[in-house]
Amino acid sequence: MTESNLQVLLRRRPKGAPVAEDFEVVETPPPVPQEGEVLVRHRFLSLDPYMRGRMSAAKSYAKPVDLGAVMEGAAVGEVVASRAAGFAPGDTVMNSFGWQRFAAVPAARLLRIDPAEAPLSASLGVLGMPGLTAWVGLEDIGQPKPGETVVVSAASGAVGQVVGQLAKLRGCRVVGIAGGAEKCRFVTEELGFDACVDHRGALDAQLEAVCPEGIDVYWENVGGAVQAAVFPRLRDFARMVMCGVIAQYNVVEGADSFGGPPGPNLGAVVRKRLRIQGFIVSDTGWPRYAAFRREMLGHIGAGRLRWREDVVPGLHRAPEAFIGLLEGRNFGKLVVAID
Amino acid sequence: MTESNLQVLLRRRPKGAPVAEDFEVVETPPPVPQEGEVLVRHRFLSLDPYMRGRMSAAKSYAKPVDLGAVMEGAAVGEVVASRAAGFAPGDTVMNSFGWQRFAAVPAARLLRIDPAEAPLSASLGVLGMPGLTAWVGLEDIGQPKPGETVVVSAASGAVGQVVGQLAKLRGCRVVGIAGGAEKCRFVTEELGFDACVDHRGALDAQLEAVCPEGIDVYWENVGGAVQAAVFPRLRDFARMVMCGVIAQYNVVEGADSFGGPPGPNLGAVVRKRLRIQGFIVSDTGWPRYAAFRREMLGHIGAGRLRWREDVVPGLHRAPEAFIGLLEGRNFGKLVVAID
Repeated sequence: MTESNLQVLLRRRPKGAPVAEDFEVVETPPPVPQEGEVLVRHRFLSLDPYMRGRMSAAKSYAKPVDLGAVMEGAAVGEVVASRAAGFAPGDTVMNSFGWQRFAAVPAARLLRIDPAEAPLSASLGVLGMPGLTAWVGLEDIGQPKPGETVVVSAASGAVGQVVGQLAKLRGCRVVGIAGGAEKCRFVTEELGFDACVDHRGALDAQLEAVCPEGIDVYWENVGGAVQAAVFPRLRDFARMVMCGVIAQYNVVEGADSFGGPPGPNLGAVVRKRLRIQGFIVSDTGWPRYAAFRREMLGHIGAGRLRWREDVVPGLHRAPEAFIGLLEGRNFGKLVVAID
Repeated sequence: MTESNLQVLLRRRPKGAPVAEDFEVVETPPPVPQEGEVLVRHRFLSLDPYMRGRMSAAKSYAKPVDLGAVMEGAAVGEVVASRAAGFAPGDTVMNSFGWQRFAAVPAARLLRIDPAEAPLSASLGVLGMPGLTAWVGLEDIGQPKPGETVVVSAASGAVGQVVGQLAKLRGCRVVGIAGGAEKCRFVTEELGFDACVDHRGALDAQLEAVCPEGIDVYWENVGGAVQAAVFPRLRDFARMVMCGVIAQYNVVEGADSFGGPPGPNLGAVVRKRLRIQGFIVSDTGWPRYAAFRREMLGHIGAGRLRWREDVVPGLHRAPEAFIGLLEGRNFGKLVVAID
């Protein structure tokens, strides 16, 4: 093994928005696989908003990353050495073993993928956790029916892109919300949404113009001012799929980092018979991964599904890229190419 | 026909809390049933919080009562004359034809009940719309599992009484919230809830004491400060059954009477995978009434279900009784005995 391992460690817990000094990039010897393990060389690392929660000591649905430990994250790569039956050097695999070049991984926690099916990095986005998130949330909560109006926040992001296109495939009218004219143009012209409104502009007036009869399904990735503008426009029996609230991940620290500023009065939930439901893809998603991937590959093969990635070269740039993700500076699914 | 009709009309739309002058009690000749109609003499009238919405011109799930018209409401009584096949004088029926002594009712809109099964007024409470509301909301949204902790606001009220007892029958730990020591005592000693906290006292501390491990199902009848105290205690995968928000029915008038003061930040809905869902019993409840009534009569017959009514004598007192209902002055299901 000639290459060293490169790792990004969590050095301290961010106060509010993370800064570069919260991370540390270190060079170490590659790990040695134990019996039953496989040594994987990562090619792409996924950067996703949920990682902000792992940096905080606040109680959440998963335990935080320890200080001094490698940051958590999904990656795709190749097996370079195997001490486990069923895996051989050259196999392509997914796993979630962190912001690093090499990982020694128990074979049971690897997912083998066929590199001929799609570009490798797609298994971190449209064919990975973000795509599965979109699919599960629509299947279980959103349940959009043909002709319904579906509004998707963070529409050009990793999850939003897939949500909107799947809703279009189900016969819905789909409206995106994104930041800036360039992202909005991409959402309508490239992804085929029916409209996209710019949350940097007058959101109320824009929503009124494109959703004059209200909203049946709202996919929430954002929270904050976007949620406040959408909520009063929900129609009777609307579903609000609570996937994330990125606008407040950096805002509040403390015992409960999801406390935060007040939300909408819930009286309308009775009157309009709304359903507001949250989910975490890891609760129920992975056992359905094969069915999801099959469906998505079908759409991709038939040219019915597009996606955009924002590829940052170099693992040492992961902290900076992640900081930008929380500010919406990425354009498309954010991945790091690991050289 | 020697008796006159007595009717309570909506004279003007209340501004905030209704006052006596918003209503008018008039004496009129009894109506004459047309072909296909039945003349019913009401014995008991139901008074329920939803009626506040009918007094307002604000957009809601049902159209408002016209000014000068008889107030809407359910009643039980006897057929005194029939011009419809299938109904004869002496039959006992339920209908929803308003705050009045007599009503001429199309036969198709009557529900025949067997007066031997239960006291007549029970068909307005435990066996009526409020009981059906409890049953439907638990069945469709709350779905409490044995061992879960269920918290019920307005626990001594028409709906709350039934919710808590049905949840106990499903093997749950049930905690009520009610106003004052006397109601709390009734909820635990008479209805058999495991605990009851007094919302006039220190709600946070009391909830901490009786729900130290959090809440799996919250039945919302109230909103406001009670909701604010309960919300942070919801556990992962908790369900919040949005049945009503009586605390704000009088608070806000305007284009949307359900706007109101801010609610909880919804970030916790993602992290805890909460489900917050509203319902109106009339959407799906009545086609299931027979199954509901059969189940409830089974529980009553076996001594497993109790209820308390607050019976106000005299239709002319309905406005005053309704005003008190919105202030929590009633104790148990509020009905008016019509002499």
